Amino acid sequence: MSKPLLAGIEAGGTKFVCAVAYSPVDIIRETRFPTASPKETMTRAYEFFRDCERELGPITSLGIGSFGPVDLDPASPACGHITSTPKLQWADTDIVGFFKKRMNVPVGFDTDTNAAALGEGRYGAGRDCDTFLYLTIGTGIGGGVVVDNRALHGLVHPEVGHIRVVPRRDDTFAGTCPFHGTCLEGMAAGPAIQQRWGKPGIELPEDHPAWDLEAWYLAQGLAAMVLTLSPQRIIMGGGVMHQSQIFPAMRGYLKEFLGGYVDRPEITEEQEDYIVFPERENQAGITGALLLAEDVAGKGK
Amino acid sequence: MSKPLLAGIEAGGTKFVCAVAYSPVDIIRETRFPTASPKETMTRAYEFFRDCERELGPITSLGIGSFGPVDLDPASPACGHITSTPKLQWADTDIVGFFKKRMNVPVGFDTDTNAAALGEGRYGAGRDCDTFLYLTIGTGIGGGVVVDNRALHGLVHPEVGHIRVVPRRDDTFAGTCPFHGTCLEGMAAGPAIQQRWGKPGIELPEDHPAWDLEAWYLAQGLAAMVLTLSPQRIIMGGGVMHQSQIFPAMRGYLKEFLGGYVDRPEITEEQEDYIVFPERENQAGITGALLLAEDVAGKGK
Repeated sequence: MSKPLLAGIEAGGTKFVCAVAYSPVDIIRETRFPTASPKETMTRAYEFFRDCERELGPITSLGIGSFGPVDLDPASPACGHITSTPKLQWADTDIVGFFKKRMNVPVGFDTDTNAAALGEGRYGAGRDCDTFLYLTIGTGIGGGVVVDNRALHGLVHPEVGHIRVVPRRDDTFAGTCPFHGTCLEGMAAGPAIQQRWGKPGIELPEDHPAWDLEAWYLAQGLAAMVLTLSPQRIIMGGGVMHQSQIFPAMRGYLKEFLGGYVDRPEITEEQEDYIVFPERENQAGITGALLLAEDVAGKGK
Repeated sequence: MSKPLLAGIEAGGTKFVCAVAYSPVDIIRETRFPTASPKETMTRAYEFFRDCERELGPITSLGIGSFGPVDLDPASPACGHITSTPKLQWADTDIVGFFKKRMNVPVGFDTDTNAAALGEGRYGAGRDCDTFLYLTIGTGIGGGVVVDNRALHGLVHPEVGHIRVVPRRDDTFAGTCPFHGTCLEGMAAGPAIQQRWGKPGIELPEDHPAWDLEAWYLAQGLAAMVLTLSPQRIIMGGGVMHQSQIFPAMRGYLKEFLGGYVDRPEITEEQEDYIVFPERENQAGITGALLLAEDVAGKGK
């Protein structure tokens, strides 16, 4: 009997990554291409998998971690769709249905952030945790919560980027979020940095006051998340977090915001191990998509 | 073979409830008595169980839901202890050890709030949810998070009462929390109501402005919790929530705080079913303690 062959798609708003693998960290073939129209992009992914099957034998299951918003509710008629995305061409795209119909395999489906959180959890910085938080701070702020190797969904899925934050006294910026103004994303994602300081973060020097303020807002959001979830680790990636000077300041502010209430060495002393950069930043998404495939393998179509 | 006999203790700061049962909702004997010194109180509980065993046969396992703070970390030498509680007589009490030594059975242990959350989840308002939030608003604000029938612990356990809230413009109260001042507990627990208005909540009329303000603070805290956890339901009990006029106002404010971002009928239309009062308010704690017993039965001592 041949080994089950897994397929995965990291469906991003700007690029697709497709891979086939015998295990989530044993990738045999991989391809990356820019996200175009749904039909063109999904067909290209499907043709890649078809070519892989010719060479390697039948694919057993597929996992997709997708940009969104997506509908994950099994009871919903739109389950498996990308729904009301600002990428208008992709609105109401039945991405799961497209592949299920053509490949005739069970399809695991989750958000891109949750897939990356799962990948980072199993094979990266979350590998020794049963409850952790994974955040990306980039053009938006997204987060995934993993409990016992599964991404938490609940009603929909967490939207930690939209937690309300209190503006700092010295900051008069009104926030960029069309829904909430001064939520965490509105005050601390890449576009907020760019609008507040008049240029993109990448062009600001390392000792620019932007980074201390950034650390302060992120820590304020983290405090609410720590009190609600009690994560064993917080993994923070995305473009903004490449400014590694944010980390030490943010750890100090988190301690201040918690005010001594959560009296654990992870928070008061060993913070370098509590709030960390991802270990597999660029691979976490596709690894997680393959984990979703592994999870549904043999579960029926 | 006789049916396994479960024992449970709801160890509260003011009273102990002890029960033996063939299932968490099939209680055979129950006793309640005030919490005195640790030795006196725990001995009384132990004697109750010993008497039950004489009559009903051997107890298979014990579950304890305890006031705290408690140490739940299996790696800690103080695991199973009540630790730095303001009830000084009880500080550093090895409650699990006391019963394990005398009864020689496996002991399940969690916070009183988590036990109540588990009880309410399995047999109450959370029975159809796999992810829900259980809150008690009384002399403090505590919360339990249940995911797939298990109470979430993570690093310690959630402490949602200490989420920071923004004071409302018309409220100058400085908050009662010695750690954070104006956190949710500091602004909205029973003592905050009493200090702000000069008399306990129970003496304020139903249409007093205290209740609208209370609803506003609670909703602000709930917004952060909804965005972090995505619960399928929020169950809110405790003395303050007996003021049932809080519920409709709180549901409206939650919708406002979320600003349309979580666009689900549970939040925008069917709120009466999303934020609810517990179904088993007085029995949830002991039921949860028995669930903890059931969970460790047969798992070794």
